Amino acid sequence: MQLLNAINFSFPLLASTTETADSSMVLAAVLLSLVVIYLASKVGGELSNRIGLPAVLGELVGGVIVGISVFHLLVFPEAGTDSSGSLIISFLQSTAGLSPQAADGVFTAQSEVISVLAELGVIILLFEIGLESNLKDLMAVGIQATIVAVVGVVAPFTAGTVGLMTLFGVGAVPAIFAGAALTATSIGITSKVLSEIGRLNSKEGQIILGAAVIDDVLGIIVLAVVASLAKDGEVDVTKVIYLIISATAFLVGAILLGNIFNKSFIAIVDRLKTRGELVIPAFIFAFIMAYLAAVVQLEAILGAFAAGLVLEETDKRKELQKQVIPIADMLVPIFFVVVGAKTDLGVLNPAIPSNREGLVMATFLILVAIFGKVITGLTVFGQPQINRLAIGVGMIPRGEVGLVFAGVGAASGALSKPLGAAIIMMVILTTFLAPPLLRFVFPDTEKATEKEQLILDGASAPSLTIETPQLLVSKSHDSSSLESETDSRES
Amino acid sequence: MQLLNAINFSFPLLASTTETADSSMVLAAVLLSLVVIYLASKVGGELSNRIGLPAVLGELVGGVIVGISVFHLLVFPEAGTDSSGSLIISFLQSTAGLSPQAADGVFTAQSEVISVLAELGVIILLFEIGLESNLKDLMAVGIQATIVAVVGVVAPFTAGTVGLMTLFGVGAVPAIFAGAALTATSIGITSKVLSEIGRLNSKEGQIILGAAVIDDVLGIIVLAVVASLAKDGEVDVTKVIYLIISATAFLVGAILLGNIFNKSFIAIVDRLKTRGELVIPAFIFAFIMAYLAAVVQLEAILGAFAAGLVLEETDKRKELQKQVIPIADMLVPIFFVVVGAKTDLGVLNPAIPSNREGLVMATFLILVAIFGKVITGLTVFGQPQINRLAIGVGMIPRGEVGLVFAGVGAASGALSKPLGAAIIMMVILTTFLAPPLLRFVFPDTEKATEKEQLILDGASAPSLTIETPQLLVSKSHDSSSLESETDSRES
Repeated sequence: MQLLNAINFSFPLLASTTETADSSMVLAAVLLSLVVIYLASKVGGELSNRIGLPAVLGELVGGVIVGISVFHLLVFPEAGTDSSGSLIISFLQSTAGLSPQAADGVFTAQSEVISVLAELGVIILLFEIGLESNLKDLMAVGIQATIVAVVGVVAPFTAGTVGLMTLFGVGAVPAIFAGAALTATSIGITSKVLSEIGRLNSKEGQIILGAAVIDDVLGIIVLAVVASLAKDGEVDVTKVIYLIISATAFLVGAILLGNIFNKSFIAIVDRLKTRGELVIPAFIFAFIMAYLAAVVQLEAILGAFAAGLVLEETDKRKELQKQVIPIADMLVPIFFVVVGAKTDLGVLNPAIPSNREGLVMATFLILVAIFGKVITGLTVFGQPQINRLAIGVGMIPRGEVGLVFAGVGAASGALSKPLGAAIIMMVILTTFLAPPLLRFVFPDTEKATEKEQLILDGASAPSLTIETPQLLVSKSHDSSSLESETDSRES
Repeated sequence: MQLLNAINFSFPLLASTTETADSSMVLAAVLLSLVVIYLASKVGGELSNRIGLPAVLGELVGGVIVGISVFHLLVFPEAGTDSSGSLIISFLQSTAGLSPQAADGVFTAQSEVISVLAELGVIILLFEIGLESNLKDLMAVGIQATIVAVVGVVAPFTAGTVGLMTLFGVGAVPAIFAGAALTATSIGITSKVLSEIGRLNSKEGQIILGAAVIDDVLGIIVLAVVASLAKDGEVDVTKVIYLIISATAFLVGAILLGNIFNKSFIAIVDRLKTRGELVIPAFIFAFIMAYLAAVVQLEAILGAFAAGLVLEETDKRKELQKQVIPIADMLVPIFFVVVGAKTDLGVLNPAIPSNREGLVMATFLILVAIFGKVITGLTVFGQPQINRLAIGVGMIPRGEVGLVFAGVGAASGALSKPLGAAIIMMVILTTFLAPPLLRFVFPDTEKATEKEQLILDGASAPSLTIETPQLLVSKSHDSSSLESETDSRES
């Protein structure tokens, strides 16, 4: 049987028989996982769309259903499960002759590959969002976005920390941890929903996006502070200063150098003659930026976003956007389904004592989480007609960023079990509530989009020429947008 | 430092600090590997294209240069190297603060992810080739292709085995192993070159493609026979019968069921309203087929090819081809660069005694490898004007399939070191010689393509509207093809 496995696939070369067997099984497990992910994302996304909600909510819920909470098709070792807890591995054992001894290795490798694919998915998502955003528009709302971000960090952090200490008698360090988790904003979920409802390039969308980026940078600093507090009981000031300087230098440097790099990029692309002449150089740039962002202790996705912003300035923008769409369609759903799959709804189960204890704290945290972000909209000045509620709501989802805070907190041992469960409940609810809320605080979608459409036709992404929820966005890489693409190129 | 690593990326959720650190490093390593792969593929591909050779040859050579043979940027554990042999890991240690203890784990995970991405790349390649091929055209040359495949298996196998036994006094089992390695044809390399020089849909191209598919199936059977011979000294007849039945059932079943599935596919796609409405269902189908092919002991790529053939019959063909192009541009180069990177040119070094011994045998094997396949062209009947030489040359590259044979042989212990080195030399030379040879045996490329172009305009892929090497294929997802896309949809 091992020998037969060895000949299933052409890889890896020159490996021993056992290694080859594992490798063929890893590929089989990845293929099955992708089938499960795509089915979950499409069924979830379409159903969500039918009831007038953003598709991404359905993808998250689809992930929950195939993941650790319900069907255990897509589970990950971090949740404490081993290969026997994965239905896909069991399925491979019964259909493809995977041996029980090899199961754990295949499970680990498959989880590793799917996790990296999910991370590549959110990198491509932020790259695409960068390509759809305009640096000048973002700069124009820069001050408002900064204020929104700062208030959105300070307000929930203060209210959460003080409230936990005074109302619930929680110690200072765990209270600060919980407060820190309240500061996060999921740039991935927010930007995807905005893109889906066609509001990414509205003034509100630009403020939310800018604030989410700044919030991400602030969040990284807050996490570093809190984590060093939990570890040594004191703040590592040099580290914080290093983080602030490197983050600023990276973002400013990326944008300044971008203007120079722009021209070389076009010059190189124009000289290339083999397939992938545009996508490959663009990805080389995006991946280098993502790597640099990671090296200076920022998030990789911020690097990809900056790369997208820089390339948006070139006249290859439209062509590149068009080519990135199918790639994003393939990789981005993996991210959202995996976020859902890794979310353990078990913390919501009141039958477990620590959850019951955590429930009151969770209610408090959720209220702080929502109101602490909603009030940020009130701080926007000089924009009398702006939808302040929408801006506040756009900052609500904690998503994967909130879960990282919870994870670091849990790993540090600073959080009690009830408080840990309460934080995760807060993250889950804000993440899953934000997409429908965002959809409903933009009630004038149709009217607004007509206006937007006029602006966009000249300047922006084909995937943004949208009306009501998703009717046109879905088909935007279809004939209509193609025609306008062709027209604009001919003119 | 670990703590800082923990906050670099948003994944994995709820992991302990150490696990998160590893995971962020794995992503960083994968990003760097992809940058190296894309640089190697673009530089290699463009240079190859400038000197009039297929781009894929440059991608293979680019892979060799960044791989185990030269720069050690992209190395894999199968070659016996550990993390200290990987320049990317060393780079991560000096720039991103990867700890030496964590290096081995990151190296293994990164290799696993890149290997799976490469396998996904060749799956997407064969899916794309399937989408560009026409089942009826393939069926029309079915008998010729079968004869070419069978002769291409029998001739080199017999000549190689008998020659090694009589001329070199090699034992029966190792001689049979070497003979078996001579039967392979790399469907990936052959189809990619044909696509690049615009001959995939010529009669010669169709015969080569069909024969390569059949050769793959025959090769799997030959390998099973040889491997069981090497293991027990006798042939496992039930296994061979099982393989023949399951392979036939899969291919016939895929095509018959495909006609029914076709209609449901279109019906489903037409009802979908969210992004990825075409690509995601297509990939669900392709990945299920790839999985099924693997389960019945065929290769995953044959399943993807069958899926492409089935979807080629639908009227979503053009739209799907267009969307698959950027995805293929992103993933396919990973496959070719990885094949190159895993190729150890050390076996060609005459300073090593076993290589010197192997050199004479290698010369013999290479001659058999080339002539054993070239004569297959002579067997094509009823096609007076066909380019018989081109058909034979198209069957020459052993590529990754040949290396699997060599790998299974080496693992079984049946091969002596000189004979093993000789087989690998044969595989390397046939693989790297085939692309330029194929380019030159189709000397009338320009004239022929004009003729082809007329046929293709009505019936086939945009990426096939090509003239000389690659001038137009490279830009085929540019304005010209878009216009015709739009036209055809409007009409």
